Amino acid sequence: MARPTALSGFPEWLPPQRMIEQQLLAQLQEVFELHGYVPLETRAVEPLEQLLSKGETSKEVYVLRRLHEDEDQLSPEEASSSQVDQSQLGLHFDLTVPLARYVLENAGKLQFPFKRYQIQKVWRGERPQEGRFREFYQVDIDVIGADKLPYHFEVEVPLVMAKALARLPIPPIRMRINNRRVAEGFYQGLGLSDTQEVLRSIDKLAKIGPEEVAQLLQSAAGASAKQAQACLELAQITGETSAVVDDVRAVAQRYGVESELLELGLSELAQLLDAAQDDLAGIVIADMSVARGLDYYTGSVYETELVGHEDLGSICSGGRYDELASDGKNTYPGVGMSIGLSRLLSRLFRQELVTLSRSVPTAVLVAVNSEEERAASNRIASALRDRGIAAETSQNAAKFGRQIRYADRRGIPFVWFVGAGDDGSDQVKDIRSGDQEAADAATWMPSAADLRPRIEAAEA
Amino acid sequence: MARPTALSGFPEWLPPQRMIEQQLLAQLQEVFELHGYVPLETRAVEPLEQLLSKGETSKEVYVLRRLHEDEDQLSPEEASSSQVDQSQLGLHFDLTVPLARYVLENAGKLQFPFKRYQIQKVWRGERPQEGRFREFYQVDIDVIGADKLPYHFEVEVPLVMAKALARLPIPPIRMRINNRRVAEGFYQGLGLSDTQEVLRSIDKLAKIGPEEVAQLLQSAAGASAKQAQACLELAQITGETSAVVDDVRAVAQRYGVESELLELGLSELAQLLDAAQDDLAGIVIADMSVARGLDYYTGSVYETELVGHEDLGSICSGGRYDELASDGKNTYPGVGMSIGLSRLLSRLFRQELVTLSRSVPTAVLVAVNSEEERAASNRIASALRDRGIAAETSQNAAKFGRQIRYADRRGIPFVWFVGAGDDGSDQVKDIRSGDQEAADAATWMPSAADLRPRIEAAEA
Repeated sequence: MARPTALSGFPEWLPPQRMIEQQLLAQLQEVFELHGYVPLETRAVEPLEQLLSKGETSKEVYVLRRLHEDEDQLSPEEASSSQVDQSQLGLHFDLTVPLARYVLENAGKLQFPFKRYQIQKVWRGERPQEGRFREFYQVDIDVIGADKLPYHFEVEVPLVMAKALARLPIPPIRMRINNRRVAEGFYQGLGLSDTQEVLRSIDKLAKIGPEEVAQLLQSAAGASAKQAQACLELAQITGETSAVVDDVRAVAQRYGVESELLELGLSELAQLLDAAQDDLAGIVIADMSVARGLDYYTGSVYETELVGHEDLGSICSGGRYDELASDGKNTYPGVGMSIGLSRLLSRLFRQELVTLSRSVPTAVLVAVNSEEERAASNRIASALRDRGIAAETSQNAAKFGRQIRYADRRGIPFVWFVGAGDDGSDQVKDIRSGDQEAADAATWMPSAADLRPRIEAAEA
Repeated sequence: MARPTALSGFPEWLPPQRMIEQQLLAQLQEVFELHGYVPLETRAVEPLEQLLSKGETSKEVYVLRRLHEDEDQLSPEEASSSQVDQSQLGLHFDLTVPLARYVLENAGKLQFPFKRYQIQKVWRGERPQEGRFREFYQVDIDVIGADKLPYHFEVEVPLVMAKALARLPIPPIRMRINNRRVAEGFYQGLGLSDTQEVLRSIDKLAKIGPEEVAQLLQSAAGASAKQAQACLELAQITGETSAVVDDVRAVAQRYGVESELLELGLSELAQLLDAAQDDLAGIVIADMSVARGLDYYTGSVYETELVGHEDLGSICSGGRYDELASDGKNTYPGVGMSIGLSRLLSRLFRQELVTLSRSVPTAVLVAVNSEEERAASNRIASALRDRGIAAETSQNAAKFGRQIRYADRRGIPFVWFVGAGDDGSDQVKDIRSGDQEAADAATWMPSAADLRPRIEAAEA
């Protein structure tokens, strides 16, 4: 077979990178579980009907067909037409559509509020480019209520995510938060009725700048020049503490805006910022320009940047939605966030911002004196493993110099020599320093730093 | 939306079952890493060409198509014909084909022998039935050499798997091993040249019984009645220690069989059985009826049953293959095994052979005295989490009885009351026993058994 080449849009890591990915996932998972979130894994496929129900055909769904499916039943026109057979299956493009379906399907077996995390690959047939993949990991947490969901979960979800992300060995994060009620209350108070259109215009601020947004507000959202100016002034407000609500009130007063919805939104925003002061001061900040283009958010909205890598876009976003799903009996509101893990890792790997201390889990290579004595080396390796030390027996009984090189090429820090001491004791060599000492497999222990492969973050 | 129903062949677990699955996967992963195996994750898709290169079209590959793919370029005949477009992508149906492709693609960046484990979903469009799914987990380990791979890896791989499986909280396992060289040497020594056909006939022994196999050996493999009898006598031999090779030699002698290949196979088999005596006596047994239908095995072959659940078939199989892949420059031999995890779990769950001690990770529910005091409860929960104790704050400030019921329904063992003691101290209640005591979030610790959800295996 000729040497295959990589498929654009379908990233694959080398084993040390996969170990980094696994360690990051384990750390995220630990934080989620410490907060009581249960793991969920849904099947990779959903009925096409489900995937397209939100009109999100632009997500470029991958449709499945069994190779041996009986195609005789289809006329050529049907087979070649772009008509969608609604019973077909497609690969999920996010973890929210499957969650909505799973909650409806299993509502009777779940406890609400249902707090779950979900870590899975998703697929989108979009044109691949830097940081945009066709197969990638999403890491989601959501809290779903039955009919109601108290506001304090809109405080909990971003704080759980911010804590989880802030303790990873990656560059610092900045989570920017806003509340739709603030924006919508303000716009309504100004006299602008098409608040969705105002939001969509404000969402373009970073991309096209304030002057063009002002134009857009007037042409698309029916704003006067003064109203457009007020919207832009609101969008410029940011703040690390709940004092930011005073800045918003000052602008509102200047433009004669009065709104109960605005006041409700401000008190919610203040609660979130107050709660963040304990551990996450300066990491969670209010930013009135955060709009999130999507229509379905109804309260808090969140975005997260990697400091120094703002060009990457948001690495973790989400918000409050009033209707995840509805089955006629119950409506399920929720609040959730999603990390685009593959995009984040791709940046970290390409810029070598994280590396692993060695390329295999192995801490000790047990040398083999001769093939006849392999069993003795195996017993040493087994004794080390019983005590939690990853150990391999050398693959052959070559000269010790070659066995050491085998370890060195993989970054294995220690090589063990069976019965090599003058008194017949075992010896262990730290091949980095060359230090060699007598050792007993029943008691010897590497340093904590050498026990497992360690993620090393680049200096800031 | 109407209540969706499950898709046949695409199993999904409830969160406690997913927690069990995750714990089992973590335990397997730990054993693999202790032995120096690196994790690998490949993309879910492969070019159809790759998937079909072994003529395994019967695996019912799922082919992908982007919904928005430009179909105008296809004539109706092309679109509807069963002709396969070789540039198409399909979902992988196992983890071996992707491994072969990955090794060729990345050979220059990997160290050989390459020891890797891989835990991923695979897809097969087969007709779903009990224990046969269209989407399921495989858990594979393989060791791949460049051009050569010493025999001792054929000893290592089954012992790693047997150790990993034997320590899971599942019914005991029995790993049945054989060596193609024993069978082929014996058949050749008997004068049977079509050893593949003999193997295929012997492979049917459990299904159709010795009499029909004897017929088949004569009709399909060209054996005489006496040769067929000899093959069946060989297939009846089993043994827990290397003494089994004497039983094989006795049968060989009785039929006048002499074969160097047989002797080589027997010495290999003896090595494996000797190595298993340390920890896995009685778990790894030689069974001369293990044939494995597939052509590509060239040495050791392995199958694994769950004791008491033999009807489930093999839950973990594999063997030695001389040519995983070849790129003209190198040939890559290997030895590997694969666990069919979803099938195993499906049995365990359906028969309730494993259960979880609670349905959420949470160990402590911190009660809320009033919404105004939620921040105080949050701080207690946070202090507990900082010490590795999973804790949630109550979702509302209902009467304590209702807050306790919330915990009870989820199996959360402890409820924490802030400032509830006569002296204003905090109190923690074990809601199973009703015992309540003063507690300090900076020092209190649940028992080790209550710290995390615990897998409970059914009594044998």
